Amino acid sequence: MRSLVTGAAGFLGSQTVDRLLADGHEVIGIDNYITGKREFLDHACASPRFQLVLGDLFDFTTVSEACQGVDAVFHLAAHSNLHDGAEFPRRDLDQNVIVTWNVLEAMRRHRIATLIYASTASLYGANTLVPTPETAPLSDQTTLLSASKLAAEAFITAYAHTYGLRALLRRPATIVGERQSHGHLFRFCRQLHHHPGRLDVPGDPALRRGYLDVADCVDAMLLALPHATAPAEIFNVGALSHHSLADAIAWTTSELGLDPVIHYHPPPAITRSAAPTLHLDCSKLTSLGWRPQTSPEAAVRRTVRYLTANPWLLAAGC
Amino acid sequence: MRSLVTGAAGFLGSQTVDRLLADGHEVIGIDNYITGKREFLDHACASPRFQLVLGDLFDFTTVSEACQGVDAVFHLAAHSNLHDGAEFPRRDLDQNVIVTWNVLEAMRRHRIATLIYASTASLYGANTLVPTPETAPLSDQTTLLSASKLAAEAFITAYAHTYGLRALLRRPATIVGERQSHGHLFRFCRQLHHHPGRLDVPGDPALRRGYLDVADCVDAMLLALPHATAPAEIFNVGALSHHSLADAIAWTTSELGLDPVIHYHPPPAITRSAAPTLHLDCSKLTSLGWRPQTSPEAAVRRTVRYLTANPWLLAAGC
Repeated sequence: MRSLVTGAAGFLGSQTVDRLLADGHEVIGIDNYITGKREFLDHACASPRFQLVLGDLFDFTTVSEACQGVDAVFHLAAHSNLHDGAEFPRRDLDQNVIVTWNVLEAMRRHRIATLIYASTASLYGANTLVPTPETAPLSDQTTLLSASKLAAEAFITAYAHTYGLRALLRRPATIVGERQSHGHLFRFCRQLHHHPGRLDVPGDPALRRGYLDVADCVDAMLLALPHATAPAEIFNVGALSHHSLADAIAWTTSELGLDPVIHYHPPPAITRSAAPTLHLDCSKLTSLGWRPQTSPEAAVRRTVRYLTANPWLLAAGC
Repeated sequence: MRSLVTGAAGFLGSQTVDRLLADGHEVIGIDNYITGKREFLDHACASPRFQLVLGDLFDFTTVSEACQGVDAVFHLAAHSNLHDGAEFPRRDLDQNVIVTWNVLEAMRRHRIATLIYASTASLYGANTLVPTPETAPLSDQTTLLSASKLAAEAFITAYAHTYGLRALLRRPATIVGERQSHGHLFRFCRQLHHHPGRLDVPGDPALRRGYLDVADCVDAMLLALPHATAPAEIFNVGALSHHSLADAIAWTTSELGLDPVIHYHPPPAITRSAAPTLHLDCSKLTSLGWRPQTSPEAAVRRTVRYLTANPWLLAAGC
């Protein structure tokens, strides 16, 4: 199989590239290195089965050229910074909707049948159904980021029905692991790297999240792929148990051997609509035989160890 | 109140312009005359309180300039031709998503607080909950048109939450009436105008639809406006009863004094996912005191009379 991976130098992207190469596939990776990191592709670039395209997906010609001879597209590139949507209101539209349309249209023109898309569990918003299944109603999208992800899902689904693509839409929640360069766990590690004695936490210690290792997330995606029979099939991807923010912080500080003073304070307005407990019902995935290989605690500790060993990322990360 | 009406020369747009002028408001209308008709604004153009901007909403500067000094925006311009989405796959994205973003962003910059948006009941797809309330889950969007409308709704909702707009999202179903220039009733009249002895109907005679007069739709929108308290509030707008396609055809031919041979045949693939019965639960609207003034049969007959008196539209209509 020859795959195109968009956002190849990102957290999920580079892990997916490495896994596809390890499985013996040919991979074309595309990235513009705006949030992706060259270092994440060091391993891939050593493979004769990997080809890197430096380019921006907002340019249709770039996407279309990268699609030549491809069997499947893993569209993992996205704008995912919730906090700058309000400051740059065009960014989510451009990078999540128009770019996704570019990918879909290039696939149609090149007759590429299979798309794997990284959506997000944040579409469920403050859904009170816990654990949340794929069929849960999607409540109001209160952020430009989640609006743009819902829009992308809708266009993918319409393209799948209209032009006969097959699309697997993955809705992951709280993925952590090696090469993580955003998210609350990353921000905690960055703070503690600079100020080991104190941790400011914008959020409630009782907030509950699953923590899934990125390798388990990549496994889930590849396992589900042959089972996606509907034109556009959605799979939740998350940990099977959920844990408090206080637990995640305790695992982090224990791994670092630190005992900081912890200050909890109200989160910024944009994250206040988040669900108190984000726990996905992943039975659609587990019914296919999927089980996480790494526990939430082990996944958090592995992330912390990786970031400690890679301080350049704590300096560069977004 | 000084309002901007986008798609001012369209069916819903021109009816809204006339109603706002009749109520004593100032109105700026914007249209590019691609599907809108100059003739629909003849009445409005005679008013000193009406100003017409000839321009394309895809150009942000045009939208932004039209927004100067405006209190509320009725964003009624849309690409609404279901059938050409598959042939022109960029059209729904451009005209329904990017244009809506342009309107939202212009409103934000000009600090315009109120948006009225014409969405569509086709978002409910083949929903089996009949009558269908606003809270019904939105099933797979199988067409680019409905995908683009869902995307627009999502961005409007996110803008409302992020920047403090107040948005009324209207989901109308099967609106008919004077100046109608698309839809199945229009196409029946056009066929019978050219070939009075025969009517080809792509669909099942048992399909059931509500038929709501456009004046009742405009009433609903203006009545609901002061009651929309959520950042983004959705209102179904449809007839209170539903009728078979065969009924609508019988009213049409009776009004025309014709007795054509009627051939029913399977609809094009793109419309096959439509609900057998599209009947909205409008209790959210009726609880505010709204009642249609025109029955479905009278609304259909009025439409047929209008089209008979305006054969230029049957020649020009899309």
